Amino acid sequence: MTTVNTGRVLENLQTLRSLTGTAQGAQRVAWTQTWLEARRWYRALLAELPLEVHEDAAGNLWATLQGASPRALLIGGHLDSVPNGGWLDGCLNVLAGLEVVRRVAAGGTPPVTLRLVDWADEEGARFGRSLLGSSAAAGKATPDADRDRTDRDGIRLEDALRRCGVDVARMGDAHAELASAAAYLELHIEQGPVLESLNLVLGSVVGTCGVERYLFRFEGQAAHAGSTPMHLRRDALAAAARLALEIREIALRHNGVCTVGSCVTKPGIVTAVVGECEVTLDQRHIDAGALAAMWAEAQEAATRAAAAEHVRVAWERIWSIEPIPFHPALLEMADGATMAAAGASHRMPSGPLHDAAEVARAGVPTVMLFVQSLRGLSHTVLEDTLPAHIEQSVLALDHLTDAAMAWVAQGA
Amino acid sequence: MTTVNTGRVLENLQTLRSLTGTAQGAQRVAWTQTWLEARRWYRALLAELPLEVHEDAAGNLWATLQGASPRALLIGGHLDSVPNGGWLDGCLNVLAGLEVVRRVAAGGTPPVTLRLVDWADEEGARFGRSLLGSSAAAGKATPDADRDRTDRDGIRLEDALRRCGVDVARMGDAHAELASAAAYLELHIEQGPVLESLNLVLGSVVGTCGVERYLFRFEGQAAHAGSTPMHLRRDALAAAARLALEIREIALRHNGVCTVGSCVTKPGIVTAVVGECEVTLDQRHIDAGALAAMWAEAQEAATRAAAAEHVRVAWERIWSIEPIPFHPALLEMADGATMAAAGASHRMPSGPLHDAAEVARAGVPTVMLFVQSLRGLSHTVLEDTLPAHIEQSVLALDHLTDAAMAWVAQGA
Repeated sequence: MTTVNTGRVLENLQTLRSLTGTAQGAQRVAWTQTWLEARRWYRALLAELPLEVHEDAAGNLWATLQGASPRALLIGGHLDSVPNGGWLDGCLNVLAGLEVVRRVAAGGTPPVTLRLVDWADEEGARFGRSLLGSSAAAGKATPDADRDRTDRDGIRLEDALRRCGVDVARMGDAHAELASAAAYLELHIEQGPVLESLNLVLGSVVGTCGVERYLFRFEGQAAHAGSTPMHLRRDALAAAARLALEIREIALRHNGVCTVGSCVTKPGIVTAVVGECEVTLDQRHIDAGALAAMWAEAQEAATRAAAAEHVRVAWERIWSIEPIPFHPALLEMADGATMAAAGASHRMPSGPLHDAAEVARAGVPTVMLFVQSLRGLSHTVLEDTLPAHIEQSVLALDHLTDAAMAWVAQGA
Repeated sequence: MTTVNTGRVLENLQTLRSLTGTAQGAQRVAWTQTWLEARRWYRALLAELPLEVHEDAAGNLWATLQGASPRALLIGGHLDSVPNGGWLDGCLNVLAGLEVVRRVAAGGTPPVTLRLVDWADEEGARFGRSLLGSSAAAGKATPDADRDRTDRDGIRLEDALRRCGVDVARMGDAHAELASAAAYLELHIEQGPVLESLNLVLGSVVGTCGVERYLFRFEGQAAHAGSTPMHLRRDALAAAARLALEIREIALRHNGVCTVGSCVTKPGIVTAVVGECEVTLDQRHIDAGALAAMWAEAQEAATRAAAAEHVRVAWERIWSIEPIPFHPALLEMADGATMAAAGASHRMPSGPLHDAAEVARAGVPTVMLFVQSLRGLSHTVLEDTLPAHIEQSVLALDHLTDAAMAWVAQGA
């Protein structure tokens, strides 16, 4: 029996890194020349195997190993990166999947069809629209909202995609790709410090957290730092500082995460009390009820902070999404696969969104595997995972693929 | 006996406002065409009186009423404003002083010489160098540090001043103007809310507060807002928020003022824990010991905040100045003058610096009068003071001038 070549995954990752990275990190930003080069290199690898390869209407690249049944198990990832990104984020998934497909193909016709997809523009790094390709496949394309987005050079999304052969108006046609999908698997680096802190290599992902993302604007009164006594101030930064500290208590109380990631002060000069302060708040939780409670408490905290500092506060929603749970049967299989590959299983939610969330929202049974990230770092050249852990993650995906193919074959 | 024409001060203030202001406020930024126009108009008023008028080497405009003694009582102010400034800041002092000089001149030769000075560039609005003219007169010119400063159009300070007839290299020659100075008086709007909150019109200023001004840089670890659990974060904003709140306790404990006026977050995006946060701190106190204690406690607070959040902190001095006390005998006279003009006296420190601080540092006995500012606002078109209060402030300066002239005549 053939076994998956985990060493080749490491070799391919290194090759891709040298082809498309700089000293500052990965540069495979979707819809750029470097991304197209990465795909050209990847297509040459696909050509070694008995796969049908095509790009769908949204730029997703599909490679299909025909099985005894047309019902398909999908394995996905994304070659695109953020600028100065890590060497594993997204492409580990694709290149690990490639070796699993190679191993399955070497064993002859599988019981069900196996499809490897390289999603287009997971990161949204250039136009601020993440999960572009996978959302189109999920039937959630939003061409009218997206076509006029511009990059920092003023180039329109629609024009950039046309140069890569994608017609924004037709992106929704990619939804047809999921018609035969019976299950979806995705391996990804954790991009967080949890597994490392627990001394674990792998985790089974129970779903992606729901997100509530808001902008808070505190309005007090700008005043001279020298002539305004403390008790007569209306300090907008002080109110924001209270909120920034209190949201951590809220997160801890509910076992979620809350982040104030940006704070902007006006007039923002050393000699003036802050008259206006804007902060962002990002709250995430795997449980919808807990997320709603965290958001309610954040509003109360902001209102209390404003009252305590005699300032006004208003907020507006930036974005939100509900929690997306993965499939319980696949989760059981993921536990078994991590146990087999690394001797332990651990369930955890994903704070970051992934293409898997779009696929799951479209009704396809889905699960993800996480592999440990060193120091929890991602979206930086410092992102790293131990080679031994990478190989264990490939083994786990390989085990999971066999279990999921059998499950699909049984008519799941 | 002639009395001071307080109504003419109001008229002149209104005329100057219409000549050199816009709907956005006063535009008499030093070394600009509008400032030169304000001075041309002011020189015409001076020409009505028996005064010797000249500009010194630093651009300060002196008008001298020769007295029986060459020993001189100085009254000062500044016609220059910030952009979009208030209609009273600085020019009230000059135009009130003009009417006091007119009243004294109408009474014949005074016992001592009386000199009215319009300081050049008190605000430092264009080149970031405040108190330029008065510091030169005080013997503290810094031509080498100042000549290469540029405005937002890239024009050098040296070149802008040359167009106004000032040679930066020779600014220090202005120090000769203080050779005969026996005392210095300055009336100014409070630029703060204290007098209004106490329902008082006038105050005697005991001195200018010392200032410690620092930049704090907190360095934690930027991390994904979704994948980093609360207990594994090193959140630089959280540490800065602790400091921003604690400096208010420090200020209240010592009866001083502490301000965090600017907060800058990096990467400063909604989806990342703040990795680096820079905040400014401005601390002021009239007592040097209390100021030193406040600064020591701020360092302790920053160190504690950093430790609590597992981040590093470093700070660097932006600027500092010691408290500058005014003269006790003149302060007694100022109390008497405010009592006479408004029926009450109140002593208070000045948080903002003024030209008076430079004169006092040069060893000239000095005092200031403050008149109430509505809502404490300054450096904005919203700056205002009731007309009746303006007239009372002129009366107080008039009283104070008589008392100070007699004091100087007695050989103070």
